Amino acid sequence: MTAAALTHYLHAHIPLSQAMGVSAIEASPARVELGAPLAPNINVHGTAFGGSAATLALLAAWSVLHLRLEAEGLPNRLVIQRSTADYLTPIAGAFSAVATLDNADLESFFTTLNRKGRARLSVTAELVFEGNVSGRLTGDFVALAEPGAA
Amino acid sequence: MTAAALTHYLHAHIPLSQAMGVSAIEASPARVELGAPLAPNINVHGTAFGGSAATLALLAAWSVLHLRLEAEGLPNRLVIQRSTADYLTPIAGAFSAVATLDNADLESFFTTLNRKGRARLSVTAELVFEGNVSGRLTGDFVALAEPGAA
Repeated sequence: MTAAALTHYLHAHIPLSQAMGVSAIEASPARVELGAPLAPNINVHGTAFGGSAATLALLAAWSVLHLRLEAEGLPNRLVIQRSTADYLTPIAGAFSAVATLDNADLESFFTTLNRKGRARLSVTAELVFEGNVSGRLTGDFVALAEPGAA
Repeated sequence: MTAAALTHYLHAHIPLSQAMGVSAIEASPARVELGAPLAPNINVHGTAFGGSAATLALLAAWSVLHLRLEAEGLPNRLVIQRSTADYLTPIAGAFSAVATLDNADLESFFTTLNRKGRARLSVTAELVFEGNVSGRLTGDFVALAEPGAA
């Protein structure tokens, strides 16, 4: 999937991503970077709203795992169970969220998913503003094997 | 502040709340309930997107603390440091988030804020769909005394 295709997919299926002005900068099964402008995501202090920042990070984490499962040929339904967001420094302009996958964790995740039809994985995304990490979100996902799912 | 005034405040200062169709159902210094329709907050599974659900809960938690600080005559800047969201059951329609304040916690929070100009408080909001709790978010806020702030 190209970055443009991921942007289109997110806008089509998760309208909040369109309202936030989310666009994919990189979309591979190993790394996803999503960007967002400040204006639609601003808060009462003139910086990025925590809900927007956490949502961008959640979308990045979800996307990289979704793309990886697709690349592995594993049709699935990916559900978020818990997310923890840390807001480190104010974000005063356009920002991005970067999620990468740890191959060590993935091996047992795929094994469990294939064997039991269900597996859990935590994926972390970092929020980046002007080259610095300004926040972090860890999402605990459950993947359910679902033959025939998109 | 009336529920209509809180809705207006959120839409004017946090545009994402308007994109989500957030409306305040109750707005008091003890309890805030915010509602949202499913359509602008839907995900790839046809249920509420986790980012939307967590954001509605964060807005409710932030709002009740903001209203309480206003009611106490404490001008402040309220910043989110950490949020943890648990997604319990799928939300398949319009949903709401309810945040209440625990008076026991508030006493030392106000004392610290008055003495040190800075204090922390955790506020929890519950997500409600069809009368059942379908998720929960706890936000760890820092209030900074800020004479002259709105």
